Amino acid sequence: AYSSGVRKVTLIPGDGIGPEISAAVQKIFTAANVPIEWETVDVTPVRGPDGKFGIPQAAIDSVNTNKIGLKGPLMTPVGKGHRSLNLALRKEFNLYANVRPCRSLEGYKTLYDDVDVVTIRENTEGEYSGIEHEIVDGVVQSIKLITEEASMRVAEYAFQYAKNNNRKKVTVVHKANIMRMSDGLFLRCARDTAQKYPEIQFEERYLDTVCLNMVQNPGKYDVLVMPNLYGDILSDMCAGLVGGLGLTPSGNMGLNGALFESVHGTAPDIAGKDLANPTALLLSAVMMLRHMELNEHANNIERAAFETIKEGKYLTGDLGGRAKCSEFTNEICAKL
Amino acid sequence: AYSSGVRKVTLIPGDGIGPEISAAVQKIFTAANVPIEWETVDVTPVRGPDGKFGIPQAAIDSVNTNKIGLKGPLMTPVGKGHRSLNLALRKEFNLYANVRPCRSLEGYKTLYDDVDVVTIRENTEGEYSGIEHEIVDGVVQSIKLITEEASMRVAEYAFQYAKNNNRKKVTVVHKANIMRMSDGLFLRCARDTAQKYPEIQFEERYLDTVCLNMVQNPGKYDVLVMPNLYGDILSDMCAGLVGGLGLTPSGNMGLNGALFESVHGTAPDIAGKDLANPTALLLSAVMMLRHMELNEHANNIERAAFETIKEGKYLTGDLGGRAKCSEFTNEICAKL
Ligand SMILES: CC(C)[C@H](C(=O)O)[C@@H](O)C(=O)O
Ligand SMILES: CC(C)[C@H](C(=O)O)[C@@H](O)C(=O)O
Repeated sequence: AYSSGVRKVTLIPGDGIGPEISAAVQKIFTAANVPIEWETVDVTPVRGPDGKFGIPQAAIDSVNTNKIGLKGPLMTPVGKGHRSLNLALRKEFNLYANVRPCRSLEGYKTLYDDVDVVTIRENTEGEYSGIEHEIVDGVVQSIKLITEEASMRVAEYAFQYAKNNNRKKVTVVHKANIMRMSDGLFLRCARDTAQKYPEIQFEERYLDTVCLNMVQNPGKYDVLVMPNLYGDILSDMCAGLVGGLGLTPSGNMGLNGALFESVHGTAPDIAGKDLANPTALLLSAVMMLRHMELNEHANNIERAAFETIKEGKYLTGDLGGRAKCSEFTNEICAKL
Repeated sequence: AYSSGVRKVTLIPGDGIGPEISAAVQKIFTAANVPIEWETVDVTPVRGPDGKFGIPQAAIDSVNTNKIGLKGPLMTPVGKGHRSLNLALRKEFNLYANVRPCRSLEGYKTLYDDVDVVTIRENTEGEYSGIEHEIVDGVVQSIKLITEEASMRVAEYAFQYAKNNNRKKVTVVHKANIMRMSDGLFLRCARDTAQKYPEIQFEERYLDTVCLNMVQNPGKYDVLVMPNLYGDILSDMCAGLVGGLGLTPSGNMGLNGALFESVHGTAPDIAGKDLANPTALLLSAVMMLRHMELNEHANNIERAAFETIKEGKYLTGDLGGRAKCSEFTNEICAKL
């Protein structure tokens, strides 16, 4: 699908620790001779001709042209009228499936050692529709919107992902016992899609049951597909099982391109101090390389990062070590 | 609030293992000389004069008169038009706050040993409003309904609970960054209520963040209050941390009475075989005794149950033992 030779990738360094960890990824990519060229853009909202704030056109054009991007953490501007910039990007680029693999790292001990799950989250609608009304004073409704189109699209993506990545099972996570029509529709779309993939096991589980089983026996699960909010919750919970958002990658698949990002915060307290952990952004970049079919580069970088973590000599503060971001980064480069 | 002397308590034994575990609780209550009289009722839906199925009037009258009940697990009747019987009861008795304490048991090892949290869940509206529409073919909306009245009521209950139980902190769990108006209203109600309880610490956290932190460091949390669906999820997750729904109690506080229940399933596969674990229902009954201000009886029974579990000689199969329900029960009685 992709032409060979040097391809351009949009880089959105982000706020807070974003620039440092982005620089770390760039350095590691250079050390690994990854054949890409970065195009760095700023997505800080600017006031448009209509007086409203929006993502700068140059940034939008860059992603639309390159069809692939890497993004650090973004601060949401304070003040009314600003919705989350992350959400604005999902919307702008029609990023319909959010993919978050969570795997126990050999080198980093948590209470769990057998986590290997991938949450696939519908990323455009559901509880995130943004449609809310105050009916009368003190009575508010929010609308959860589920469409067949978006549900089929994300279900198809989940099964295709399972197939391409040698995964055995897809679990659809729902509360169709409560939201019979909306989650019922989502569930039906997953069921219908499952029919087309007889080689992949399919199961249906209630969200509450999955939450309970996940903390007791995460080895039960493999690929999970679900509506927007459930994915928000479960992906964070799974990240918690393996060490937190500083260690887990994320990719957003769009109709017209894909955006990979670390989903931790901007950590303003340590920004600019060379203390941040670039692992989540680096592993997101590794996901991106696989998406670009640069598998060998992806594997090399991943191996070097995992070894560095496993050796434990150059861990950043969040992982209990005392290394600087640059020391951790240099060690990975040295291994490449 | 309650008169002394023998009081009547409605007992809904429930389906599957319900009758066995209810009998176990009754036996233990007798051994502990609890001054109550059971009034056993059946809530299996019957067809009313309007042709619709509903909870039998005798059961409704019993709860409304006694104002206190204990309930085993219920099967939801199969077939269209039957919503969950559990939900029907919540609605019928206006059970506005669902309280689920989750504490690590000394005698039962899990990955966690410092869990001591109480989830307090708004139990009447939110994502459980039951209002759904198909706008056009393949486009469905479900309405999440948040009212100031229900939000204030459950917030007030949470702070009152914290105060009465010597709890230090209440955390309100929300996604007001996404559902600004509905979760925003819930959040404001919690904030306003917090003002009245300066002695209780108050914090606001996103649902996804709580899910992540809960699996890493549950000791961070104390009492948590939240909208309906978030409580469904978090309470199951917390139960998972301490050993599952077979060990955790639940109480539903109503405007006009309270209903205590085990929230595990009916376990039809082991029903009638004297293999079920009555702990969740027993601990729910202990919560009920505290609610009735029969604290000494509550403490005695709880102590006997915890000791039996800790000794480990008479554990049921779900806890890795080989004892029968009746053996476990007899051991608790022997300790009383
Ligand atoms: C920042 C926030 C809007 C976002 C979400 O709720 O989706 C985040 O939690 C995530 O998971 O990407
Ligand atoms: C059985 C089901 C309707 C119920 C719910 O979703 O509330 C259950 O999960 C619970 O937590 O009591």
